[in-house]
Amino acid sequence: MRKRICVDMDEVVADALAEHLARYNRDHGENITRADLKGKWLRDVVSPDRHALLENYFRAEDFFEDLAVMPESQRVLEHLQQHYEIFIATAAMEVPTSFSSKYRWLARHFPFIPASHIVFCGDKSILRADYLIDDNPRQLRRFHGEGILYSSPHNALVTEFRRVDNWPEVEQLFLGAPRG
Amino acid sequence: MRKRICVDMDEVVADALAEHLARYNRDHGENITRADLKGKWLRDVVSPDRHALLENYFRAEDFFEDLAVMPESQRVLEHLQQHYEIFIATAAMEVPTSFSSKYRWLARHFPFIPASHIVFCGDKSILRADYLIDDNPRQLRRFHGEGILYSSPHNALVTEFRRVDNWPEVEQLFLGAPRG
Repeated sequence: MRKRICVDMDEVVADALAEHLARYNRDHGENITRADLKGKWLRDVVSPDRHALLENYFRAEDFFEDLAVMPESQRVLEHLQQHYEIFIATAAMEVPTSFSSKYRWLARHFPFIPASHIVFCGDKSILRADYLIDDNPRQLRRFHGEGILYSSPHNALVTEFRRVDNWPEVEQLFLGAPRG
Repeated sequence: MRKRICVDMDEVVADALAEHLARYNRDHGENITRADLKGKWLRDVVSPDRHALLENYFRAEDFFEDLAVMPESQRVLEHLQQHYEIFIATAAMEVPTSFSSKYRWLARHFPFIPASHIVFCGDKSILRADYLIDDNPRQLRRFHGEGILYSSPHNALVTEFRRVDNWPEVEQLFLGAPRG
């Protein structure tokens, strides 16, 4: 029986933060970078009167359409799939307008993952899997298998999970193989 | 710790079969009824050259919008929610055009179920729950908790699961209480 790995989407295979920063900086003439966000969410460095506006970016139909793919995530996931059962599990219920664009994005960039192995959910305690790779400590705490924290600026200070900084580290962790 | 029940959508809380029959009969001047489908899927009683057409009904944007609610499912689920953790889990990945209408349908008819407890998936072996109420024996076989078969004409001959015929029977099974 193969072990099962669930993989989060935003900030793990899709660079939603880069897009969020780009749109916010463009609209407000600012220059917030990832380095400014150590241990913080974007909302923590933006004035409170702009919080609603920040959420609105996610609701734009095209937000999730053109996110950059995290480097090497495709190659590593295809490699992992030879030894593990891979599911993509994203908290899409928080942004119902994202369903179609998230589905298309996955079909375009991860065509080797069958639709039957995609999960749109909210509370990730619903996932029955051995591992969950996620940037969100809140979701990892709810999860019943082993949580693996994928580094993102906001979780820089979290210490309670095994951490990976990039996809080659995921490969090393699960397959023990040197890169390439 | 409350036990968790996952509940399928089509043929369990939403009467997709009634809508499917109505549309097919209307378009083809036929009069197929539920009674004609004992132990069979609709495709089994329709000529093979119409199978693709049958699938197309599900792809219509409005198909899932106006499905009838299964009698008493709302009352019973709200009652169950006092004693169990309830998730709705639907194999929406088979019909990506259904995401938005399914989400709206649930918000309209089951507003007491939070979005965080809705799951759009494919293979239901991904669900971590104690029970799954589903009309599809294939999904129940994959599920790792106890599967409860919700009666639908196509599963009439299946004997390997505990069976419920309607929502008052679900209530009786999980709460042991007489109706009302």
